[in-house]
Amino acid sequence: MAAKVGVIMGSTSDWETMKLACDVLEELDVPYEKKVVSAHRTPDLMFEYAESAAQRGLKVIIAGAGGAAHLPGMVAAKTILPVIGVPVKSSNLNGLDSLLSIVQMPGGVPVATVAIGKAGATNAGLLAAQLIGAFDADVQARVQARREQVTQRVLESSDSL
Amino acid sequence: MAAKVGVIMGSTSDWETMKLACDVLEELDVPYEKKVVSAHRTPDLMFEYAESAAQRGLKVIIAGAGGAAHLPGMVAAKTILPVIGVPVKSSNLNGLDSLLSIVQMPGGVPVATVAIGKAGATNAGLLAAQLIGAFDADVQARVQARREQVTQRVLESSDSL
Amino acid sequence: MAAKVGVIMGSTSDWETMKLACDVLEELDVPYEKKVVSAHRTPDLMFEYAESAAQRGLKVIIAGAGGAAHLPGMVAAKTILPVIGVPVKSSNLNGLDSLLSIVQMPGGVPVATVAIGKAGATNAGLLAAQLIGAFDADVQARVQARREQVTQRVLESSDSL
Amino acid sequence: MAAKVGVIMGSTSDWETMKLACDVLEELDVPYEKKVVSAHRTPDLMFEYAESAAQRGLKVIIAGAGGAAHLPGMVAAKTILPVIGVPVKSSNLNGLDSLLSIVQMPGGVPVATVAIGKAGATNAGLLAAQLIGAFDADVQARVQARREQVTQRVLESSDSL
Amino acid sequence: MAAKVGVIMGSTSDWETMKLACDVLEELDVPYEKKVVSAHRTPDLMFEYAESAAQRGLKVIIAGAGGAAHLPGMVAAKTILPVIGVPVKSSNLNGLDSLLSIVQMPGGVPVATVAIGKAGATNAGLLAAQLIGAFDADVQARVQARREQVTQRVLESSDSL
Amino acid sequence: MAAKVGVIMGSTSDWETMKLACDVLEELDVPYEKKVVSAHRTPDLMFEYAESAAQRGLKVIIAGAGGAAHLPGMVAAKTILPVIGVPVKSSNLNGLDSLLSIVQMPGGVPVATVAIGKAGATNAGLLAAQLIGAFDADVQARVQARREQVTQRVLESSDSL
Amino acid sequence: MAAKVGVIMGSTSDWETMKLACDVLEELDVPYEKKVVSAHRTPDLMFEYAESAAQRGLKVIIAGAGGAAHLPGMVAAKTILPVIGVPVKSSNLNGLDSLLSIVQMPGGVPVATVAIGKAGATNAGLLAAQLIGAFDADVQARVQARREQVTQRVLESSDSL
Amino acid sequence: MAAKVGVIMGSTSDWETMKLACDVLEELDVPYEKKVVSAHRTPDLMFEYAESAAQRGLKVIIAGAGGAAHLPGMVAAKTILPVIGVPVKSSNLNGLDSLLSIVQMPGGVPVATVAIGKAGATNAGLLAAQLIGAFDADVQARVQARREQVTQRVLESSDSL
Repeated sequence: MAAKVGVIMGSTSDWETMKLACDVLEELDVPYEKKVVSAHRTPDLMFEYAESAAQRGLKVIIAGAGGAAHLPGMVAAKTILPVIGVPVKSSNLNGLDSLLSIVQMPGGVPVATVAIGKAGATNAGLLAAQLIGAFDADVQARVQARREQVTQRVLESSDSL
Repeated sequence: MAAKVGVIMGSTSDWETMKLACDVLEELDVPYEKKVVSAHRTPDLMFEYAESAAQRGLKVIIAGAGGAAHLPGMVAAKTILPVIGVPVKSSNLNGLDSLLSIVQMPGGVPVATVAIGKAGATNAGLLAAQLIGAFDADVQARVQARREQVTQRVLESSDSL
Repeated sequence: MAAKVGVIMGSTSDWETMKLACDVLEELDVPYEKKVVSAHRTPDLMFEYAESAAQRGLKVIIAGAGGAAHLPGMVAAKTILPVIGVPVKSSNLNGLDSLLSIVQMPGGVPVATVAIGKAGATNAGLLAAQLIGAFDADVQARVQARREQVTQRVLESSDSL
Repeated sequence: MAAKVGVIMGSTSDWETMKLACDVLEELDVPYEKKVVSAHRTPDLMFEYAESAAQRGLKVIIAGAGGAAHLPGMVAAKTILPVIGVPVKSSNLNGLDSLLSIVQMPGGVPVATVAIGKAGATNAGLLAAQLIGAFDADVQARVQARREQVTQRVLESSDSL
Repeated sequence: MAAKVGVIMGSTSDWETMKLACDVLEELDVPYEKKVVSAHRTPDLMFEYAESAAQRGLKVIIAGAGGAAHLPGMVAAKTILPVIGVPVKSSNLNGLDSLLSIVQMPGGVPVATVAIGKAGATNAGLLAAQLIGAFDADVQARVQARREQVTQRVLESSDSL
Repeated sequence: MAAKVGVIMGSTSDWETMKLACDVLEELDVPYEKKVVSAHRTPDLMFEYAESAAQRGLKVIIAGAGGAAHLPGMVAAKTILPVIGVPVKSSNLNGLDSLLSIVQMPGGVPVATVAIGKAGATNAGLLAAQLIGAFDADVQARVQARREQVTQRVLESSDSL
Repeated sequence: MAAKVGVIMGSTSDWETMKLACDVLEELDVPYEKKVVSAHRTPDLMFEYAESAAQRGLKVIIAGAGGAAHLPGMVAAKTILPVIGVPVKSSNLNGLDSLLSIVQMPGGVPVATVAIGKAGATNAGLLAAQLIGAFDADVQARVQARREQVTQRVLESSDSL
Repeated sequence: MAAKVGVIMGSTSDWETMKLACDVLEELDVPYEKKVVSAHRTPDLMFEYAESAAQRGLKVIIAGAGGAAHLPGMVAAKTILPVIGVPVKSSNLNGLDSLLSIVQMPGGVPVATVAIGKAGATNAGLLAAQLIGAFDADVQARVQARREQVTQRVLESSDSL
């Protein structure tokens, strides 16, 4: 099935984090594609990817990057699709630089920013599914079912304290 | 026309900021509703609002709050719809507390966070339109047109330096 | 004996920290109960817990959470009892996000916030005992005795330098 | 009636903030006393105040200070009563120094910390009333009534958007 | 004379800051050009500008931007010329976001970052002149002369204390 | 010989850091004493120590503490001697809380603050020696000699690159 | 009388702050000199000043600077006298940059750092007097008397609440 | 061949980081020299080094330092050559202190600051090569070739996800 979500990241070293977004999309049966696209080292590829995303049938792009993280914002500047930004934890400033570089976009070009690191990557996958789910009852039902399972697990977890 | 976007905020003092989200939605002809819903002072209303949002036909919720900003995350916990969080600038910590309280959600319940303050509110309106636009060609065309106008204005602005 | 203190936390992973609050309460012979209650994953349970706390005889609630830590503030919004918030150390921002999400409550709904992490959890247990001790001479005497032991230990510790 | 709450502050310049704690206590009819007590400029007075507080019938102390804010923690070290700390906004670091100086107490001596500045002072008054209210049904009823009024005002405020 | 320095900025609102870079270049008689180029609102113009800069005879580019400031880093990704980044003071986070977004570039694509705001813009102009001056004795002599004047002014300023 | 420097710390766990201050004092043959004195757990001892310091012949006090570090400032409030504060690295906020709690003293009671952690402790010992050395030529000569040795070692170290 | 304290600052714009150090020294009758000495714009003067300070009879140097504040540390590197550093409030980062640039000195060369801004300048004057006072009973007596006056003023100030 | 780039650092412990700048310069065949020069422990050497740099044929200086990092700024104050500053990661504040101490230079003396730590050191080497390359087509060609190799590697890296 044609990918509805494009998952991109600035470097293979981001894969450890971004894999969690892909895991959620797979679990929820949302078709996706994944690719290394670097804002600074492959800027032309980045522009081509962003420009062609809507025509290729994608509905949302998830972009992860760390440090001076320009990938989500630059992709957002070149596509009309919603872009979800994942601030990858950086080695020196713990991802605070990644977060501010992604979230503090000027008025005109939004990036839907999630939490720093792995929790953020998981939530990027969920958010993509929720966006699609708002217009696709089947996807929404699967998100709802997953959420209920999580709730159930938390309810049962008190016994282990 | 039935509202597709719900714009809520923790206090009337957030309206100065959140008004910019509504302005964008109006400009793009996306039907919306607006309401004061406080996580801490009207928690039951918040839960009712979030629980009924999908059935009432909303496709996305924009929630703005400042300080220990719990509104976006708690609404997200009670609806399957995508929730956009706007960190309202706080009086003492300039909205850094608002930002961290909104964006650092645990894995399982995402909030699509935008920039602190007015730029964020504008972008929340745009992001909502882009989400809907991914499934509604007319809305997408209007977002695209607005974006081209902005580009044009920037291109012409160099003359004023 | 009926619990006077309710110790809740957002996840079993918080138990390593929150256990120290329970240790102090046990040491001071203050009856307590403990439970996993997640603001985001079990919001309805959270509301039920908070709403019924006073009737069930609790005098104070200790709530620990990390990251976008909404549990203490939301519980405080739904009970008239004093709520003590413990900012659990988060993996990326060292608990600064937890701290700001808990302490920066808007006027109207206070959370009594203690230090980040294990020192905070210990102090949450002591603070709960001190609150109760202000109205229960036996508990106060036990807190006083514990404090004198600690003082004694510090006085003797110089010898080991 | 004998004061149940002691409101102290490091300097008359803190009064603009701390006045809000007193306003709440007055509104809720909780007897209180107020005094300037400086950790650094009147250390002996501070120790006398803290040491005699319980015997004089106080049930809780509210202490406000800014910058290297040592007043709440030092008072807490010299009394068995619960101490609420209000981080007063500082001129250079916006109260972040005040907050960390108050909240990051070592295990053994807790300070119940509230938000920076005026919201924190208001909440300190409310928290003191809630503590007392856990053991005094009349006070608790007045806190509950105030809270319901606030809720009602928020519910009505949407009309003004 | 053909411009040797290109001064670009993301918005006309940055001109108040970036003007100081141009003032220095004029004072030192270094030919320059200036233009509004926005990473997010005119991404194609940005790429064209960066790609053609070296061929057009520029030796260095000064780029100023605020918030999630992607202009300097993206221009650096598309040119082999040295790029100087000026973090423009942002309205909410005082330019800390601008600074981290510009300076924390990944290995491979450097941006020569200067101080936040007007001091940084002045220094960007000086740094451009010093770079060129390392290969152009006339420019270097003018930078040296300016520096000696500044030293002289400081030496004389003690009298005004 | 009677101690001229008093080295105190809030806990034996600070000894690993504060030992470096003592090492320097020993190396420079400046007589000192060391002791665990906790602001929060032995407040009375702290006051006695500070009050008697000058009479006992001490010329300067070095106080190390972490987190909400009140020891240096409170000792400074109770003695007319200069007090050097060492911010011990804290487990969660890396000593930023310790630093702000020590350095941000209000006008009237100074603390001479040095760097966070071990470098700070070493420098506290040196600073104490320099203070005394300003009035004792022998001590000053030994500080000068140590400094020249350090310079020599750095000059020779380039060979190892 | 020959100056015992040298008060230097990086720019005349620091005088508004540094004046408070001089005011205290005058009040306490400690002879001092004052001068603009810039680390970056008059580096040679800075070295000469530091190198000759001890021979000229100074006992302590107070150095104020803002932003990348190198003056106190560089002076400390060139004199055996104790150096007190005053972090002047900077326009963008509120003096946090000044503070870290001054206090985080490497092991070997201490700077006695005081609070950011005017409170710090006042305390720099007091600290200088306390250092000298440890070896000069007259100065110490005047510091003691001033402190008692301040205490008296605080004790009386409660009446104005 | 005579060195065109001088690589200096405050301590041999900075070599692990600064080595990456040298690696890049070697890879690009740009002649360089390296030396330990400490602002605080060898201030006279620092001044001599900076003063003689231009005459010795250097075109740019790379200076790395951590904590209160004064080396880059002080060298910049004593040479007319462009100075690149590398903020070495510090043990307690992760290099945030190093970054602010280097980048926040006052108007008049610029330092071209790169990222914290190893990525910054690599980029310092590249930036030096780009500066020289703007006036030396051979160096520029080698920088360009290296960049294309990096791009190629990124393009191929997606296969490994």
